Amino acid sequence: MVLFPKNLFMGIISKMQEYTLLIDAEDSKGLVYNISKVLFANNLNIEKNAEYVDEETKKFFMRTVISGNVNANLLLKEIKEALPDTAQIKLNKNQKKDVVILATKETHVLGDLLIRYSDGELNANIKAVIANHENLRDLVEKFDIPFTCISAEGLSREEHEDKMIAKINEFEPEIIVLAKYMRILTPKFVQEYPKKVLNIHHSFLPAFIGANPYKQAHERGVKIIGATAHYVTDDLDEGPIIAQDVVSVDHSYSWQDMRKAGRNVEKIVLANALSHLLEDKVFVHGNKTVIL
Amino acid sequence: MVLFPKNLFMGIISKMQEYTLLIDAEDSKGLVYNISKVLFANNLNIEKNAEYVDEETKKFFMRTVISGNVNANLLLKEIKEALPDTAQIKLNKNQKKDVVILATKETHVLGDLLIRYSDGELNANIKAVIANHENLRDLVEKFDIPFTCISAEGLSREEHEDKMIAKINEFEPEIIVLAKYMRILTPKFVQEYPKKVLNIHHSFLPAFIGANPYKQAHERGVKIIGATAHYVTDDLDEGPIIAQDVVSVDHSYSWQDMRKAGRNVEKIVLANALSHLLEDKVFVHGNKTVIL
Amino acid sequence: MVLFPKNLFMGIISKMQEYTLLIDAEDSKGLVYNISKVLFANNLNIEKNAEYVDEETKKFFMRTVISGNVNANLLLKEIKEALPDTAQIKLNKNQKKDVVILATKETHVLGDLLIRYSDGELNANIKAVIANHENLRDLVEKFDIPFTCISAEGLSREEHEDKMIAKINEFEPEIIVLAKYMRILTPKFVQEYPKKVLNIHHSFLPAFIGANPYKQAHERGVKIIGATAHYVTDDLDEGPIIAQDVVSVDHSYSWQDMRKAGRNVEKIVLANALSHLLEDKVFVHGNKTVIL
Amino acid sequence: MVLFPKNLFMGIISKMQEYTLLIDAEDSKGLVYNISKVLFANNLNIEKNAEYVDEETKKFFMRTVISGNVNANLLLKEIKEALPDTAQIKLNKNQKKDVVILATKETHVLGDLLIRYSDGELNANIKAVIANHENLRDLVEKFDIPFTCISAEGLSREEHEDKMIAKINEFEPEIIVLAKYMRILTPKFVQEYPKKVLNIHHSFLPAFIGANPYKQAHERGVKIIGATAHYVTDDLDEGPIIAQDVVSVDHSYSWQDMRKAGRNVEKIVLANALSHLLEDKVFVHGNKTVIL
Repeated sequence: MVLFPKNLFMGIISKMQEYTLLIDAEDSKGLVYNISKVLFANNLNIEKNAEYVDEETKKFFMRTVISGNVNANLLLKEIKEALPDTAQIKLNKNQKKDVVILATKETHVLGDLLIRYSDGELNANIKAVIANHENLRDLVEKFDIPFTCISAEGLSREEHEDKMIAKINEFEPEIIVLAKYMRILTPKFVQEYPKKVLNIHHSFLPAFIGANPYKQAHERGVKIIGATAHYVTDDLDEGPIIAQDVVSVDHSYSWQDMRKAGRNVEKIVLANALSHLLEDKVFVHGNKTVIL
Repeated sequence: MVLFPKNLFMGIISKMQEYTLLIDAEDSKGLVYNISKVLFANNLNIEKNAEYVDEETKKFFMRTVISGNVNANLLLKEIKEALPDTAQIKLNKNQKKDVVILATKETHVLGDLLIRYSDGELNANIKAVIANHENLRDLVEKFDIPFTCISAEGLSREEHEDKMIAKINEFEPEIIVLAKYMRILTPKFVQEYPKKVLNIHHSFLPAFIGANPYKQAHERGVKIIGATAHYVTDDLDEGPIIAQDVVSVDHSYSWQDMRKAGRNVEKIVLANALSHLLEDKVFVHGNKTVIL
Repeated sequence: MVLFPKNLFMGIISKMQEYTLLIDAEDSKGLVYNISKVLFANNLNIEKNAEYVDEETKKFFMRTVISGNVNANLLLKEIKEALPDTAQIKLNKNQKKDVVILATKETHVLGDLLIRYSDGELNANIKAVIANHENLRDLVEKFDIPFTCISAEGLSREEHEDKMIAKINEFEPEIIVLAKYMRILTPKFVQEYPKKVLNIHHSFLPAFIGANPYKQAHERGVKIIGATAHYVTDDLDEGPIIAQDVVSVDHSYSWQDMRKAGRNVEKIVLANALSHLLEDKVFVHGNKTVIL
Repeated sequence: MVLFPKNLFMGIISKMQEYTLLIDAEDSKGLVYNISKVLFANNLNIEKNAEYVDEETKKFFMRTVISGNVNANLLLKEIKEALPDTAQIKLNKNQKKDVVILATKETHVLGDLLIRYSDGELNANIKAVIANHENLRDLVEKFDIPFTCISAEGLSREEHEDKMIAKINEFEPEIIVLAKYMRILTPKFVQEYPKKVLNIHHSFLPAFIGANPYKQAHERGVKIIGATAHYVTDDLDEGPIIAQDVVSVDHSYSWQDMRKAGRNVEKIVLANALSHLLEDKVFVHGNKTVIL
């Protein structure tokens, strides 16, 4: 008799392809029932499930990780049929997402992403780093990631962005991370990549919008500084917030000391927000986010 | 034509009786489907819903706030029929819970609860405060809450506890809060009130179990101190943790300074944990809690 | 031979009157030397000492707690002679400060102060609570503190403030605490009590200046909310910040939930800031504070 | 007329060599006076000054950053003469310290140090990374830092340590950083480098001493996890604590999730502690630290 070794079996189970089902709909009675009926009828496992109903706007959000013998097209069709026409439904295979990083000169956020990436911590393929200066080439190439410098010198904002967009599109990224990319984006750029561009702002938004937030914070004499990761929209530093964190400071901090302390927050906040995006946890809800 | 005034209507809606359904079961396919089917068939609204499956133990937890025309007995019966026999199911009316507070001499945690209570912040009826010293009588009676002192002087631990238990039982509390009650409880006491006794320990457990945790923390030279709210079990300071929080300290803190700083944490942590219990958010899962 | 018992001696020592010396001067060589020379010549003990030099403005701040056989007038004279004429020097006896609290309707911050006060935690005499509504009378009088209601109804802002000022001045407070006093103060009021009025603002300033900060925070979708204790100046919510703290929130918080969570922060932040003032730890430095 | 360009002058000033004076003595009257007298007589600038007197042990600690025309040997001699014989006095030139890092296999803490180093953020020369496995060679060599693997395979603990010590001593480090070096050190090793070895422990000590702290934390069901940077002494995880920080977790975290969340804390805490050491801010006081 040949026994099926338990550990091997566990290994197979754990490798079963997972999918994430994302639903964004007007709330109504029976939504959970109708969705769970389809999943049950398809004999699927619910690995994780989270829902949220916003009482003010009556919007329903659901994120469900499923596994089993999934025929994605068919399943998606059945779920669409079970829900109102206005519902937005996505069924994503759980796999690495393609990411392009934009940067300028600063090392700490980009470097942190590169270390995490080399450590296998990010569920991503970093396809390229594109910067408007040469400074970071050496660091990026250490990690065998393509680096492109597109200098803005002598170019109008629009000309520079056109070159950036052309280069970015070569890599067809699902997420674009601004890792301290210090240029203001035009509406054209933003609209090219809706809900795809993640920025880290070095303040606890909405405090200190705009340039030099650490100088502003120092000037105001705050006792806590922070950082904010948010989707980029047309309004500078006004997009939906995904993650924030803070650190205490005191009167003895110069603005440079604040910047140094803030760097630790910036890199952690951006990495946490990116991790949420890579795991399909973030819904945009008006100018806010719902994270399930 | 008589118009139905909108505000009145809103008032009626918002006063509709809510219930909280709590399910603790072995995980299996179709649980969510079977539960949501019953709720849908009864035409109930799901106000809030949260689930958690523990991957290690394969346990399923669900907390659902429902409203509508609820016949509680019938609904409970239908849900029980839809689920495996081993599932633990509760259906609680959302209303104030009866609470008895035990204390000794310290003011800060008890006083904080009294202020919150007088402010209508706690979804509770504080039926009584029972202490082993007289010190707190004046404070408690300011708030028109019955105060009983049961001195332990001259009594064995068992004799004292018997008197305590007799007094507590007069009030039939659903939750007993130890607001810095500085006596060790016997297993008999603990077993009298399973999953009902909430304690605040003045350290970041499991660090500094036992007496004088601030002295222990000072002795060890830690840079952060904390407090832990937990269910009381037979093992001292070893029960399931419900809430924890911390505050930074430095070398300049004497242990008395740590105690003073820690008081702020103690009262916030206990109030948060009590609020979770009052809203039926806490499941006991082995020696841990799941908070939905 | 009669031995002087050590413990008694320690007791006497510890009761020795302490003074706090506060110096705010242009930085120059020899400041510490000149001050310490005077203290040494007077045979005084330095119990605590902290200095700070602001590198940007070249300002020197020093807080020294001294004990010993202090002749305050003489000592102050000697220190003044040892320092440049422009130096601001204070020598305060370490004793309770007289405090008047202004409030409106909300219980949580005021109640927290009252509990701390009844517990002996505040190094203060709370001389009175003055409010523009009657709601808090019952709570305040529980603690045997005089309560005065000065309604603003039918009065101009100036008329109301004149009555407030007249009442406040009866108590000659060293510190005025706005414990959720929900009226905007005129420059006249502010100038009547320079560096004496402590306010708690229910946001992480400078985010959400003005009315309804929790609604603003909810609208913006922040992931962290906070509170700020600051000196009141002519500019609304723009005075020097003394203390700030924050708490995490998420998409599931309504603005009322944020307000509830924020209350915990408000009361802790205000109590910490007040404690700094009561211990003479706060210097005003332009529109910032230095806390030693 | 030749004007002295202001910026050049500022540059010269800012490059003036600074020294840090560190004093650890029994407290007695006149200490500050005697020290400041010497500094004043030598016409030195006090850039930063911090003192602390421990009331319990009557120990005095002082850290003073001075600039000016310093003759270090002479100044040290004068200060020694001005203070009691038992005082411990150091006068360190403010310059980069030589550091050797020990590691095993994990990337996150080491990688974070390397990124900071390449960014010029650490006031250090990283002379070498020495590991007991080969895994990290590639990462370290990207940053042009010598990497040595000393495998423990087939060696007794003592034999392995002798090889480590021999290798370490080639670099004459002032600080040895254990960046997740997963081997227990013998007393011999510890005594070879007194007050020189900095470790990061992946728990909020003294909770979860020893192996697998994240598993222990998960088992206990804590709601907050942390990390602790401390000096290494003979007792495992019992040395003086330099820095700690924490992060919130909940029931949904597996121990692997806790480990992932904890990594962010580990690297920040170790970097902060190392930064304190590099700036000569840490005094050892019994089994505690004083950080000025």
